[in-house]
Amino acid sequence: MTAAITYEHIKTCKQSGARLGRVHTPHGTIETPMFMPVGTLATVKTMSPEDLKAMDAQIILSNTYHLWLRPGEEIIKEAGGLHQFMNWDKPILTDSGGFQVFSLSDLRKITEEGVHFRNHLSGEKLFLSPEKAMQIQHVLGSDIMMAFDECPPYPADHSYMKASVERTSRWAERCLAEHKRSGKDSVQGLFGIIQGGEYEDLRKQSANDLTALDFPGYAVGGLSVGEPKDVMNHVLEFTTPLMPEDKPRYLMGVGSPDSLIDGAIRGIDMFDCVLPTRIARNGTCMTSAGRLVVRNAKYARDFSPLDEKCDCHVCRTYSRAYIRHLIKCEETFGFRLTTYHNLYFLLNLMKQVRQAIMDDCLLDFREQFFEEYGFNKENARNF
Amino acid sequence: MTAAITYEHIKTCKQSGARLGRVHTPHGTIETPMFMPVGTLATVKTMSPEDLKAMDAQIILSNTYHLWLRPGEEIIKEAGGLHQFMNWDKPILTDSGGFQVFSLSDLRKITEEGVHFRNHLSGEKLFLSPEKAMQIQHVLGSDIMMAFDECPPYPADHSYMKASVERTSRWAERCLAEHKRSGKDSVQGLFGIIQGGEYEDLRKQSANDLTALDFPGYAVGGLSVGEPKDVMNHVLEFTTPLMPEDKPRYLMGVGSPDSLIDGAIRGIDMFDCVLPTRIARNGTCMTSAGRLVVRNAKYARDFSPLDEKCDCHVCRTYSRAYIRHLIKCEETFGFRLTTYHNLYFLLNLMKQVRQAIMDDCLLDFREQFFEEYGFNKENARNF
Repeated sequence: MTAAITYEHIKTCKQSGARLGRVHTPHGTIETPMFMPVGTLATVKTMSPEDLKAMDAQIILSNTYHLWLRPGEEIIKEAGGLHQFMNWDKPILTDSGGFQVFSLSDLRKITEEGVHFRNHLSGEKLFLSPEKAMQIQHVLGSDIMMAFDECPPYPADHSYMKASVERTSRWAERCLAEHKRSGKDSVQGLFGIIQGGEYEDLRKQSANDLTALDFPGYAVGGLSVGEPKDVMNHVLEFTTPLMPEDKPRYLMGVGSPDSLIDGAIRGIDMFDCVLPTRIARNGTCMTSAGRLVVRNAKYARDFSPLDEKCDCHVCRTYSRAYIRHLIKCEETFGFRLTTYHNLYFLLNLMKQVRQAIMDDCLLDFREQFFEEYGFNKENARNF
Repeated sequence: MTAAITYEHIKTCKQSGARLGRVHTPHGTIETPMFMPVGTLATVKTMSPEDLKAMDAQIILSNTYHLWLRPGEEIIKEAGGLHQFMNWDKPILTDSGGFQVFSLSDLRKITEEGVHFRNHLSGEKLFLSPEKAMQIQHVLGSDIMMAFDECPPYPADHSYMKASVERTSRWAERCLAEHKRSGKDSVQGLFGIIQGGEYEDLRKQSANDLTALDFPGYAVGGLSVGEPKDVMNHVLEFTTPLMPEDKPRYLMGVGSPDSLIDGAIRGIDMFDCVLPTRIARNGTCMTSAGRLVVRNAKYARDFSPLDEKCDCHVCRTYSRAYIRHLIKCEETFGFRLTTYHNLYFLLNLMKQVRQAIMDDCLLDFREQFFEEYGFNKENARNF
């Protein structure tokens, strides 16, 4: 039996140690390191599948928790799965719902069996367990599924984190058992999630537990939850060496340009984040010269593109003045344009990162990119 | 000097009297009868110019009043005109702002000189005159400009309407003088607007006044303002014969499928309306089998297209269940899909109307279309 998900290593950057590779999935191959646009509710907000293909998105992420609530997994099952429901024939990764249960829902109660909580929309009582999280993702039919884990808030004390890591390991085992039982493991790959917060001993314990279960890929969870960037980088430095070299490594919830580069340098292959799409809907853009709030009055008569150095369709076609006008008028098309540009910007950044790995110069690329973007300035913004 | 706008008559339907023709404009030729999508604020809500081209939109309408307020005509002037500002290289028609001044603004005061009113967004005092309405449209650079008129509410009594018609005629003369003075009449064509409400004598007076001024095209204004459909059809029956046969005839603000067909039968060439785009954003679609409120619960598990007989991209690709899910979640992409479909539906309807004129069978087509759509039922909805 062929595994659903395999990792092919191409080369390691001699300057930085970053990995260039490919992840093979049932819906196609993905060049890594790469960024995944987030399509929470079976749509990347404001975008069409054609838009995503035009910007060279290789894979999207969708959220199990949100789809479970709306439209409900039964409807997606009747549609023939998520790919068919939303007309996306490239790879899809789904999370487990765990993160949303912990961040969105009210009155949650964690037991060994799973999590009791209330639907954040209707208040209805719900229960999510490792088995249920697998069953929903089996119905969704994603190429890459994620194990059901607990993502504790930052900061969490060592004793809480240790108990949580151990439960997450037990849940991972149950996820894997349910996945094997389903017979879907030849068409969907299940990734384990390493937790442990900022504690090196707990990251080690989590990585040991999970790698023993032999998942086809591993994520680093519990980062980008409010900790400083240097903490995140430090945790990655001692965590990625614990992860198998022949499996893809996924850093969850990270999407600021600096962190994508810094993550790749620390051996990460996959990233996702709502950042580029969320800030786009607030009129904020990522550009090679840094953050640009195009809704600001100073762009009212600025007929240059969002980013002079960007060759995306938006930058080749529309002016800041036009985009600002649309956003000031709350015209949807304005949010389409900023969303398209921001996603293109990150996808293109990852292309440049891959080229720099190929050329063994990712640290040089980082230095130049950070300088131009403004990340080297004091009090630099996160994105 | 070549006129900016010319009308080429191709044939008249032997069965119905409807006209098949072409309107030649500085940005290309339009097959008539046709429908114009409305792009109020320099964007057809939720659509891109590429979307509009993919659905074969030949021309769009944009609103002088709204663009004057936001972003202001000076910014569009600096951009090089509306075509360039919004990246639309096909024809544009702009209205005069008159209709919005009368329908949207507060505290308006009509004088012989023009209309004093308050900006409906900021409350700022503004003044719009025939000359100013021309000057703004000259800056916008639309292919077809509209004369500044008064559009009285329905019903209005005969004496008010008569005074209004006479003022509108005097304003039309001032519009034409300003347009000629500008030297723009070789690149922008100015249409006159026939008013007079439901009064045959006043429509005749208005038509006589305006045709004497020799505009390159004429609109019928003051319909679709709340009067019953049979009143509208009756007014058209005695008004279109008053309009020159060698000029395009434009029925303003009409977009329900039945009225498009009934207007064409009465000799109308051009239509515009926000109806298809507005109802789309409420989850309502036009289909060959009638009105379909796709947000309704009964479509939650309906995996058929919006319209089985429609070959638009949306109907070939997405299910009612998916579109309903998006709209229930207020996902922009859902509104993109319903908007695209509704506009395609009307543009395609006009293609069918043109073919039926060519085949001398528009009355037969009307009968079949009305039957299938449900317009022949008692208490049929307007769209």
